[in-house]
Amino acid sequence: MMSELTPRTYRLIISCPDKVGIVARVTQFIAEYDGSLMEANNHTDMDSQWFFMRCVISAESLKCSLLEFEEYFSPVADEYSMKWYIRDSMVKQKVVLLASHASHCLADLLYRWHSGELDCDIPCVISNHENLRSMVEWHGIPFHHVIVDKNNRDASFQKVEDIIERHEADTVVLARYMQIIPPSLCKKYEGRLINIHHSFLPSFIGANPYQKAFERGVKLIGATSHYVTPDLDEGPIIDQDVVRVNHRHNKDELVRLGKDVEKSVLSRALRNHLDDRVIVSGNKTVVFD
Amino acid sequence: MMSELTPRTYRLIISCPDKVGIVARVTQFIAEYDGSLMEANNHTDMDSQWFFMRCVISAESLKCSLLEFEEYFSPVADEYSMKWYIRDSMVKQKVVLLASHASHCLADLLYRWHSGELDCDIPCVISNHENLRSMVEWHGIPFHHVIVDKNNRDASFQKVEDIIERHEADTVVLARYMQIIPPSLCKKYEGRLINIHHSFLPSFIGANPYQKAFERGVKLIGATSHYVTPDLDEGPIIDQDVVRVNHRHNKDELVRLGKDVEKSVLSRALRNHLDDRVIVSGNKTVVFD
Amino acid sequence: MMSELTPRTYRLIISCPDKVGIVARVTQFIAEYDGSLMEANNHTDMDSQWFFMRCVISAESLKCSLLEFEEYFSPVADEYSMKWYIRDSMVKQKVVLLASHASHCLADLLYRWHSGELDCDIPCVISNHENLRSMVEWHGIPFHHVIVDKNNRDASFQKVEDIIERHEADTVVLARYMQIIPPSLCKKYEGRLINIHHSFLPSFIGANPYQKAFERGVKLIGATSHYVTPDLDEGPIIDQDVVRVNHRHNKDELVRLGKDVEKSVLSRALRNHLDDRVIVSGNKTVVFD
Amino acid sequence: MMSELTPRTYRLIISCPDKVGIVARVTQFIAEYDGSLMEANNHTDMDSQWFFMRCVISAESLKCSLLEFEEYFSPVADEYSMKWYIRDSMVKQKVVLLASHASHCLADLLYRWHSGELDCDIPCVISNHENLRSMVEWHGIPFHHVIVDKNNRDASFQKVEDIIERHEADTVVLARYMQIIPPSLCKKYEGRLINIHHSFLPSFIGANPYQKAFERGVKLIGATSHYVTPDLDEGPIIDQDVVRVNHRHNKDELVRLGKDVEKSVLSRALRNHLDDRVIVSGNKTVVFD
Repeated sequence: MMSELTPRTYRLIISCPDKVGIVARVTQFIAEYDGSLMEANNHTDMDSQWFFMRCVISAESLKCSLLEFEEYFSPVADEYSMKWYIRDSMVKQKVVLLASHASHCLADLLYRWHSGELDCDIPCVISNHENLRSMVEWHGIPFHHVIVDKNNRDASFQKVEDIIERHEADTVVLARYMQIIPPSLCKKYEGRLINIHHSFLPSFIGANPYQKAFERGVKLIGATSHYVTPDLDEGPIIDQDVVRVNHRHNKDELVRLGKDVEKSVLSRALRNHLDDRVIVSGNKTVVFD
Repeated sequence: MMSELTPRTYRLIISCPDKVGIVARVTQFIAEYDGSLMEANNHTDMDSQWFFMRCVISAESLKCSLLEFEEYFSPVADEYSMKWYIRDSMVKQKVVLLASHASHCLADLLYRWHSGELDCDIPCVISNHENLRSMVEWHGIPFHHVIVDKNNRDASFQKVEDIIERHEADTVVLARYMQIIPPSLCKKYEGRLINIHHSFLPSFIGANPYQKAFERGVKLIGATSHYVTPDLDEGPIIDQDVVRVNHRHNKDELVRLGKDVEKSVLSRALRNHLDDRVIVSGNKTVVFD
Repeated sequence: MMSELTPRTYRLIISCPDKVGIVARVTQFIAEYDGSLMEANNHTDMDSQWFFMRCVISAESLKCSLLEFEEYFSPVADEYSMKWYIRDSMVKQKVVLLASHASHCLADLLYRWHSGELDCDIPCVISNHENLRSMVEWHGIPFHHVIVDKNNRDASFQKVEDIIERHEADTVVLARYMQIIPPSLCKKYEGRLINIHHSFLPSFIGANPYQKAFERGVKLIGATSHYVTPDLDEGPIIDQDVVRVNHRHNKDELVRLGKDVEKSVLSRALRNHLDDRVIVSGNKTVVFD
Repeated sequence: MMSELTPRTYRLIISCPDKVGIVARVTQFIAEYDGSLMEANNHTDMDSQWFFMRCVISAESLKCSLLEFEEYFSPVADEYSMKWYIRDSMVKQKVVLLASHASHCLADLLYRWHSGELDCDIPCVISNHENLRSMVEWHGIPFHHVIVDKNNRDASFQKVEDIIERHEADTVVLARYMQIIPPSLCKKYEGRLINIHHSFLPSFIGANPYQKAFERGVKLIGATSHYVTPDLDEGPIIDQDVVRVNHRHNKDELVRLGKDVEKSVLSRALRNHLDDRVIVSGNKTVVFD
């Protein structure tokens, strides 16, 4: 659906030490090849003096190929010590979803994918429970049931990792997976492994955040989507949101109201990630939305 | 302004162990004296099996006086082991404001009071700085400058307490006072001492919450109004709110954006408190708004 | 799911001319039969001097049956000229959903029903398009395809009405049905026919609201759920919400962002309606949430 | 306050027909003079194929003066048929405020100005009532009382215009002025005359929007800040916001709750306008915030 309506673009993402003239150098390079700039955002982190940029170039307008662009741009990138990549909007990212027993985030992402709202491929879903198989398979997506054995977590996660690898995942999403990911897997998918935590971090880190929120008597509950790092719930935050609650809401109602926040925060974070709008900056993110 | 437009009411506030027939008993009592019920709210906390009620009675309709009501209602209250009071909307609470150097919360409360939006008297403002004197005095309110001596906090707070006492404060508001209140004062004004904390509690307890929020890279910043208890930032939460921020906002901008949230949360909390809409329930609040 | 966890209750809904002593009379009646009041809300519309009340009674506590309650309460109701009903929370309402080509609201309601979040039965879905059949049938719900013939709308809507009747619908939801409902059907299901309009009413009444919002350059777009009356988009509003947009959003993006608002507003409105929290008051609603 | 803490910048604002290479040309020009780009935003309106850009240049870094920049940049601007200007952040805009009887928006703007949050000069306040004189004069700002004579509006507004002219206003703000501005004045201050309308436009255009909102039974009320044009309430919208209301709020309470929305929307719009973040695009605005 999207691919037909949306014009093909190349997204150029750059981060490097700040310096006078970077924007000029990059945009001039694009203009040299007749690239029409459809969107351009940049930001300098003043503390670290680090520069971030996202350019969206109309593919049709560019008079060189993507491979040539990469080749010709390399010396420019080197000159400024850039960390960079360029992505073709027509090449969909492969996103593997991990879920547990709760269906809300998974169902929401599958719906958005199925209706063309999430521009990616979903090669498979992995879960440690069987209950969501039918829903996943109705969408025509393979479902892998991998039990997490408490006494042999390493072997279990090796299976998970093998499946992710086999499907050549670009991005992995923990759609309320509820398992702690081994540090090695966190590192392998650094900046590409997205979690939804069911609280407004850094409040209520760890297990049972709704119970803790209920006990503390907060007047808003929230959800946080972040990149996973080996430090539990401490990775760079991509997006957050909250919903108002009051004394009439018991813990079950916080859970129910929280689900909608989780869904919207996770889908928004994933959408921005897939659009290359999120750049990790230390333990924070720059989000060009 | 309010007193002219708003009809005189009596507000009856009750909390007691839950039991069948309380609402009937209370509302029947009011009806016996022809009291017209303009608003009635109740709530039962399921965990503690505790009952909370707020009734607003048209003063004009009631065929007994407030004193008589108190006398006649006493046996009913005893029967149900009620903690209760009834307040005449025409008798304004005396609210003493404590401030430090920052003006935003104080100016906001003074404006709302001056324009008739906050239905109370403000007998004085106490501050450990001189800079806000002129603004306070323009409103016709006495300004007391009490320096908090780090080496003799006890004596300093004795002065503060004396002023509060002398003005017969019903309620004390810390409008960004930035000083830790001695436990004895917290206890004396339990449930009547309101603070605004410049974070979405329980995130960023203690000093410099905006700096911490900036470092953590949160995507929303907030403010929390709560009753002060001897445990710093741990008292019952009255109200909270948040505002969206992003990577472009540095710490100063978080401070600036946060000010508006602090102002609105504190004024809303105080307004509800003055309307007897807030009832403390353990370490939480019931807010009938 | 709900039925197992949530205690059985009776919901008593009352509206009548305001008078001293109604709350007392109703709650005393409930107390006479040992009914434990789990929730009680009331409101008096000052303009019309009309009184509204919703009581939730623990079914287990009540020492008479529902039928007996109805019989015994009748004289009380007559005395106060009450319009009233009492509903058993265990008897699920039958909700017929009408949809067109767009899937988002329908998919959202089906998901919430399937996961136990919406406490009702869905006897069937009616659509003027075939495209959502598979999704509906996966949920085990019959799908009726009724083409709306522009040259014979009466006959088409007679078919729709027959299906609704046959399934004994308590409530009908237009989940982006996009057809104008005949006045006779509006009247037959008055106060039970719910629509979602894809704008913040009364802005952008009628067709193409997102296009109009785009052209006007508004900075927030919204959605409105309301009871349908013969006057297009003019019925009593149940709920509304908005989302922030900016100059970067073209019309397609307004449509995309609006979908999430439509989904949440419609599901919230329906949920409150099913909980008997919504009472029509002239062309407005009282919503006890 | 701001001027000491914030580094001096030049803000370059451009709008012109879209073309390949504009960003490159502009940023290269800036880089040629060693200008360090602190912020850069651009947007292309796809319908009109019009390009908008805002660059913030560190004044210290630029090796030419502002006058020289204007001179040297002129040929570039001509080449692309740019409408453009560059503004020194150290030269404060002169903002004349017009108010009527209601104090909330005026008091809010004065507070923000006084506390250094609004980076402008306020040479005077003009009002058709006397009641706010003392508040204005406490801030050290001249107050002009100009009665609007219903039978001679032309003469009245000539006086208003004369005062605005005499104070060399860059921007004029209608802080709930409640008078219809003559078309000639609208045109003279096109894109520099800001109004706050007390509804979520285009809902409730014209007089008494809160009364209309109350009668329609909306569940959110709002406010809209827009540039004034001769068409009442139809000018380009700068910002909007809403607040949730319910059946318990009567018209007076809508007014009270609306005041806070009006204050925050107007101050945010004015702040963005003063920061040159708002560019008019037909009957819409591009807001680079």
